[in-house]
Amino acid sequence: MQLQLSTWPEVEAYLAASRSVILPIGSTEQHGPNGMIGTDALTAAAIANAVGEATGALVAPPIAVGMAQHHMAFAGSMTLRPSTLVAVVRDCVVSLARHGFERFFFVNGHGGNVATVTAAFSEIYAEASLGAPGNRAGLKCVLRNWWESAPVKALSKELFGNAEGSHATPSEVSVTWFLHPDAQKPMALDPPVAPHGSFADAADYRRNFPDGRIGSNPGLASAEAGRRIYNAAVEALAADYRAFAA
Amino acid sequence: MQLQLSTWPEVEAYLAASRSVILPIGSTEQHGPNGMIGTDALTAAAIANAVGEATGALVAPPIAVGMAQHHMAFAGSMTLRPSTLVAVVRDCVVSLARHGFERFFFVNGHGGNVATVTAAFSEIYAEASLGAPGNRAGLKCVLRNWWESAPVKALSKELFGNAEGSHATPSEVSVTWFLHPDAQKPMALDPPVAPHGSFADAADYRRNFPDGRIGSNPGLASAEAGRRIYNAAVEALAADYRAFAA
Amino acid sequence: MQLQLSTWPEVEAYLAASRSVILPIGSTEQHGPNGMIGTDALTAAAIANAVGEATGALVAPPIAVGMAQHHMAFAGSMTLRPSTLVAVVRDCVVSLARHGFERFFFVNGHGGNVATVTAAFSEIYAEASLGAPGNRAGLKCVLRNWWESAPVKALSKELFGNAEGSHATPSEVSVTWFLHPDAQKPMALDPPVAPHGSFADAADYRRNFPDGRIGSNPGLASAEAGRRIYNAAVEALAADYRAFAA
Amino acid sequence: MQLQLSTWPEVEAYLAASRSVILPIGSTEQHGPNGMIGTDALTAAAIANAVGEATGALVAPPIAVGMAQHHMAFAGSMTLRPSTLVAVVRDCVVSLARHGFERFFFVNGHGGNVATVTAAFSEIYAEASLGAPGNRAGLKCVLRNWWESAPVKALSKELFGNAEGSHATPSEVSVTWFLHPDAQKPMALDPPVAPHGSFADAADYRRNFPDGRIGSNPGLASAEAGRRIYNAAVEALAADYRAFAA
Amino acid sequence: MQLQLSTWPEVEAYLAASRSVILPIGSTEQHGPNGMIGTDALTAAAIANAVGEATGALVAPPIAVGMAQHHMAFAGSMTLRPSTLVAVVRDCVVSLARHGFERFFFVNGHGGNVATVTAAFSEIYAEASLGAPGNRAGLKCVLRNWWESAPVKALSKELFGNAEGSHATPSEVSVTWFLHPDAQKPMALDPPVAPHGSFADAADYRRNFPDGRIGSNPGLASAEAGRRIYNAAVEALAADYRAFAA
Amino acid sequence: MQLQLSTWPEVEAYLAASRSVILPIGSTEQHGPNGMIGTDALTAAAIANAVGEATGALVAPPIAVGMAQHHMAFAGSMTLRPSTLVAVVRDCVVSLARHGFERFFFVNGHGGNVATVTAAFSEIYAEASLGAPGNRAGLKCVLRNWWESAPVKALSKELFGNAEGSHATPSEVSVTWFLHPDAQKPMALDPPVAPHGSFADAADYRRNFPDGRIGSNPGLASAEAGRRIYNAAVEALAADYRAFAA
Repeated sequence: MQLQLSTWPEVEAYLAASRSVILPIGSTEQHGPNGMIGTDALTAAAIANAVGEATGALVAPPIAVGMAQHHMAFAGSMTLRPSTLVAVVRDCVVSLARHGFERFFFVNGHGGNVATVTAAFSEIYAEASLGAPGNRAGLKCVLRNWWESAPVKALSKELFGNAEGSHATPSEVSVTWFLHPDAQKPMALDPPVAPHGSFADAADYRRNFPDGRIGSNPGLASAEAGRRIYNAAVEALAADYRAFAA
Repeated sequence: MQLQLSTWPEVEAYLAASRSVILPIGSTEQHGPNGMIGTDALTAAAIANAVGEATGALVAPPIAVGMAQHHMAFAGSMTLRPSTLVAVVRDCVVSLARHGFERFFFVNGHGGNVATVTAAFSEIYAEASLGAPGNRAGLKCVLRNWWESAPVKALSKELFGNAEGSHATPSEVSVTWFLHPDAQKPMALDPPVAPHGSFADAADYRRNFPDGRIGSNPGLASAEAGRRIYNAAVEALAADYRAFAA
Repeated sequence: MQLQLSTWPEVEAYLAASRSVILPIGSTEQHGPNGMIGTDALTAAAIANAVGEATGALVAPPIAVGMAQHHMAFAGSMTLRPSTLVAVVRDCVVSLARHGFERFFFVNGHGGNVATVTAAFSEIYAEASLGAPGNRAGLKCVLRNWWESAPVKALSKELFGNAEGSHATPSEVSVTWFLHPDAQKPMALDPPVAPHGSFADAADYRRNFPDGRIGSNPGLASAEAGRRIYNAAVEALAADYRAFAA
Repeated sequence: MQLQLSTWPEVEAYLAASRSVILPIGSTEQHGPNGMIGTDALTAAAIANAVGEATGALVAPPIAVGMAQHHMAFAGSMTLRPSTLVAVVRDCVVSLARHGFERFFFVNGHGGNVATVTAAFSEIYAEASLGAPGNRAGLKCVLRNWWESAPVKALSKELFGNAEGSHATPSEVSVTWFLHPDAQKPMALDPPVAPHGSFADAADYRRNFPDGRIGSNPGLASAEAGRRIYNAAVEALAADYRAFAA
Repeated sequence: MQLQLSTWPEVEAYLAASRSVILPIGSTEQHGPNGMIGTDALTAAAIANAVGEATGALVAPPIAVGMAQHHMAFAGSMTLRPSTLVAVVRDCVVSLARHGFERFFFVNGHGGNVATVTAAFSEIYAEASLGAPGNRAGLKCVLRNWWESAPVKALSKELFGNAEGSHATPSEVSVTWFLHPDAQKPMALDPPVAPHGSFADAADYRRNFPDGRIGSNPGLASAEAGRRIYNAAVEALAADYRAFAA
Repeated sequence: MQLQLSTWPEVEAYLAASRSVILPIGSTEQHGPNGMIGTDALTAAAIANAVGEATGALVAPPIAVGMAQHHMAFAGSMTLRPSTLVAVVRDCVVSLARHGFERFFFVNGHGGNVATVTAAFSEIYAEASLGAPGNRAGLKCVLRNWWESAPVKALSKELFGNAEGSHATPSEVSVTWFLHPDAQKPMALDPPVAPHGSFADAADYRRNFPDGRIGSNPGLASAEAGRRIYNAAVEALAADYRAFAA
C-alpha cells in the first residue's frame, strides 16, 4: 500500500490495524561508467514497494537524495549534508508519529547513509530520553540495507564472486536493469574489476577510484541477475518487516 | 533526460551544452476524501519529466515531502519544517552547482511550498551576496507552480468553473487519475463544493475544512480532464524553461 | 498604544480586553539615489503606530533589519539571512504568546520579507501541528504589506501611474518625506524611470539595476503625496486589523 | 548621521572617510511598575544617535528586542533566545563588513545582552580565526553599556545613591522621561527600594522581584535628571567612539 | 606527547615532523551495577595516551561526554544530542586543521558514538566536497574502537567467553579497575549474565536491561585481566596509528 | 565524589541527599612559551575534584575544549565556536536535570568561556521562560572562575604583583606545575612582563601578543606557589559551593 496512492481515510483505516510503516531511502550519486545515478533510490523504492505489497505494509515515498559527499567529484551526484539528512529523517518520523505510527522500517539503498540515518534515530530518541514530554516517546526505528540479508549476499557471491566489490556493484546495477530495461548500458570496463580502498572527501575518492567504481565489475550485470536479486531481497525484507511489526 | 536514469559521463556531456536543470518538488499530504496523498509530488514529478523530454533538459529526482504543516491533522500527511526544507533545497542546489550547473528550474506541485522555497533561494543567494567567496555566486533559481500558467488556469476554469477551489482541486486530482488510472477513486462528495477560508496550524485547518478540501469539488475529476491539463502544463512549462535556460 | 512606551501592568490590563497585537517589520536597504535606506522600516513603524492609535491596538517595536540579500551590493544595505529572520519572528511571536497573545498582525514595509516571514509563520505553526504540547497552539499570524490594499494601490496609480515601479517607488519615498521632511532629497533621475526585471543575488541585482531602483521614478515623490498615501494605508489597515482581531 | 535617513551614495561617501559604525542595541522588557517596556531600546537608540551627531559617525537602526528571558513572567516582555541574538548580531556585522566597515561600536542599553553579544562577537571572529577565507577577517567589535562610564556612574550615585539599584533604575527611567515627557508615569513605589538578589529563569525572577524592579526606586526619576544623565552618557561615549575609530 | 602538557612551541616543532594527531572520545553513562560511569572516557583516554607514548604521537584531551541517549534512564548518565556531537567533532578537527594537522585518529571507547562520529566526519568532508574553498580540504579522519582489534577480541573471548556481552563488559570494567584500582567494586551479579537484545530510547533500554548491562557478566572483571587487555589494545592501536600516519 | 568513578546506583543514592552538582570547564589553548596548552582544563578539573572531596559534591568530567577563538594563531590551540559550546553546556545540564539535578555549579578555568557559558545558561532558562513545559524549569546554574575569589586574588597579588597579568599568568602556570611537576618548564622570558592590551580575532591577538602572554611573567611560576594558590582556590570555592547548594 503506497502512501502516495492512498487517501487519508485509507491511512486512518490502516492505522486501526497497524502502527508500522516502511520508508525507502536511497541516494543520487554516480555509480561508475555505466551505472545509473539513481541506482540507490530506484532500488530502495522498488524493493520497499514490493515488500509493502507482500506484507500489506504502508510505504512512504522515497528519500531520493542521501548522504553522498564522497561522490561529489563526479558530475550529477547530489548530497545532503549529514546535518540536513538528520533533520529530514527526524521530520518524516515525527510527522508520521503525529498520526500514531510507532515503528519505522527504513529500506536503505546506500551504504553511505547508514551512519547519518542511525545518528538521526538517536536524535529522535534523544528528545524522549532527555525528558521532553509529548508524542515522540516509545518510537522504534530500524534501517535495513537491502543487499545485506544472508540470501542476497549468497546470491551476489554466487553470481559475481570477487567482482561484486562495494560500489557500483554488478548486483545493484543488475537490479536497476531489471527495473528499467530501457536504460541498460552494457559496457566492457577497463580494468574489469575496479580497485579497492578507502576514501575521505570527494577529491580523495576520485583520486583513488577514477571511474567511480570500488572493487566491482558492473560489466557483469544483467537484468536476469537483477530479477533474482530483487526477488531475494524482497522476500528477506518482507520476513524481516513482519517480525519487526509484530 | 532523467538524472536518476543517467550515468555520470552522460551528465558530464550534458554540462558541455547546458548549465540548466529542472528540479520537481511536491508534497505528501491529504488531498481530501478521494485525492491521493502523493498528488503534489506525483504531478510535479511527471510534469517535470515530460518537460525534460520535450526540451532535452536534465531532471533531478523529486523532493517528495514538502512544507505541509497545515495538513498534519489528517492521517498520512508528512511535512518538513520550513527550516529543514530550506536546508534540503540549499544542499540540492549547491550539490549541482558543484558540477557547474547555474540555473535551477523548480517545478512545484504544492502552493504551501512557495514561501519556504523562495526563502531557500534567498538563503542560497545570501551566501554570495554577503561576500563569501566560492562557486555559489551567479546562480539563478526559479519556482514554477505547474497549475498557474495562463493556459492551465483557463482550462481548469473551463472544465470545473467555481468548483476548482484551492486544495484537492478537481484539476490536480484529474492529473493523478490520468497518471495512475488504477488508483482512481470516483466519489460523490458532501457538500459537493467544500468551504473556502484561511487557516493557521493543523488543528485550525481541520476545524475549518473537516474533510480536507478547500473550495473544491474533486468529485468532478476525470482521467480525461487530467490528460488535457497535464498536456497544457507540460507545454507551458516547456516554453518557460526554454526561455529561462536561454 | 506603543509597547515601548507602556508598562507591564498596562499590558496586563490590555490583555484582559484583547489577545491581538501589531508587529511592524521593515528593512534596511538602499532605495535608489535619493531614497532613504530605512524607508521600509520607517514607513512600517509609522503606519503601524498610527493603526494602533486608530484602533487601540498594542504595537510592538519594529524589526528594522529584514531579508534584503539582493540589495547587498549597495553601500549601507543590511540583511538577515532568511534562517535568522525566521528565528527572530518565531522568538517575537512565542514571547508574546507566553503572555496570552494569540493573534499577530504584522505590518510589512518590504516585499522581500514576504516569503521568509510567511515561512516563519509555518515554522511556528509546525510546532503545534507536529504535536508538541504547550502554549503555542492556536496562534494566528498574518502579514499585511501596507502598499497593497486596494485604496493605496489606486492612489499610487493615480499619483504616479507607470512611474510607480516596484522598488524605490515614488509612493514609499513620498511617505518617508512626509514623515521626515528634513530628510527630503528631491532629485532628477536619469533615466527618469528605472528598468524593470528580475534578479537573483546581489551582484545580479546591481548589474540589472545600476542605481538601485526597479521600474520607478522617485523623482516624482512629494511629502504631500506621502501624506495622502500614509492616510490611506492607515485607514485600510485599521479596518483590516479590526476584522482580524474580532 | 543615521543610516535609516541616508541614501546609499551618502554611505558610499562616508566609507571613503571612515570604516567605523555605531549600532544601538536594547531590549523590550518590563521595567517595573512605572518604567517603560522599551526603556533599554529607547535610551540606547537616542544616545547612539546623539553620539553620531557629536562625532559624525554613522548610526545603524536599533536592535530593539534583546536577550531578556528572565523578564518573561511580566506581560509585554519579549526576548530573543541567545542563539537567535547571536545570529542577528552576526548578520548585521557581516552585512556592514560587506561594504567595507571594519569597526563596530555597539551602544548597549541592557545588561542582559552583554554575555550573548560578546559571544556573538566571538562567533564572528571564530570564522576568521579558524581559517575561513574572505572579507570577515580583521573586524573589531566593542560593546559599551551607556550607564557604565565613570561620569555617568558618578552622576547616578550623586542623584540616587543606594536607590539606583540594578534594574528599572531611576537613572534609566529618568532618561526615558526626558526623551518621552508625555509618557512619564510618576508613582510612589512600595517598598520604595526594591529587593536585591540574583535570578535564573523567569519564574525565579518574578518570585524574587514581584514588581519587576531590582534594588531600585524609580519613584525618584525625573526628566531633569534624565537630561543630565543623557548628556553625560553622550559625552562619554562620544569620546570613547572617537578613540575606537581612530 | 599529551597536548594538554605541551606548549605551543612544542606543538609547532611536532608539526614540522608530523601532520597526524590522536583524539580520544568516550562517554559518560551507566555501566551496570558495578561499572564506572566514566568507563568509556577513562579507557579511551588512557589507551590513547599510551598509544601516544608508544608512537610519539600528539594526543588531544578526551571528549568525555558522547552520544548516550539510550542510557538516560539511569542516574548519572550524560549525553550530547547527535547534532551537538557532530558540531564538537567538527570544531575540534577544524581547529587542529588550522595549524596544519591533516590526519585525525580517534580512539573511541563507546559503541554508541560510532554512527554520530562517522556522520561528523562526513559533515567535515562535505564542506570541501561541495566546493567551499579553504584549509579544510584533504583531511582524513578515522575512528578506532579500542576493543575491536583482533588481538583484543581474542583475549576477551579467552578470558570471559560468552559472558563478555556488549555493554558493561567484563573487559572494559577490568581495564577501569587496572587504571583505578581504588575504585574497584567487585560484586556478584544477578543474573550473572545479563539479557541480550536491542533498544530504542532510554525508557525502552531500561525496560529491556533493568540493571544496565547487556549480555555481560562484569562480576568476572579483574584488574589483572584489565592489564592484559589494556596492553593488547595499546599495541594493536599503536601499529594501526603508525600505518595511518605513514 | 567523581561522576566518572561512580556507578549509577551510587548517583541514585547521592540524589536522595542532594540536587547539586559541580561541572569543571576549561580550555585547550596556548599559554605562552612555557605554559601548558591544557592549563585551563587541568586546573579547573583538579580544583573541582578537590572541592568535591571537601564538600562531598558530585563532580562531572571536565569540558576540556572551550571558547578560545582568539588563541587560534598559536599551534595546538583548539576552540569550540560559541554556538557549539552553548549546545554542549545545554546538553550537559539537561542530561543531569533528567535525573533530578537542579543546581549546577560550573568551576571555570578560562576567562574566554564566561560570556558564552553565561549565554548558554540563558539559552537553557529561556526554554522554561518561554513557556515550554517539562523538567527544565527551576534550574539554577552559576559559573565561578577559580582565580577570582578574594583570597586567591590577594595571594596572586602578594606572590606576583604586577607581573600577574591576564593570560598565561604565573598563578595559573604555578598551579599546573604543582599538579604536574614533571611537566614544569622554567624559562626566562623576554620581555619578562608581556604587553597589555585588547584583541579581536586570532590574527589580531598574535599581532598584539607575539608569544601568547598578556601582561604576565610566567617565568616567576613555581610549584610551591601553585600549591598555595590551589589550596586557596579550593577553600574559597568549597565555601561558595556549600552556600549555593544549601
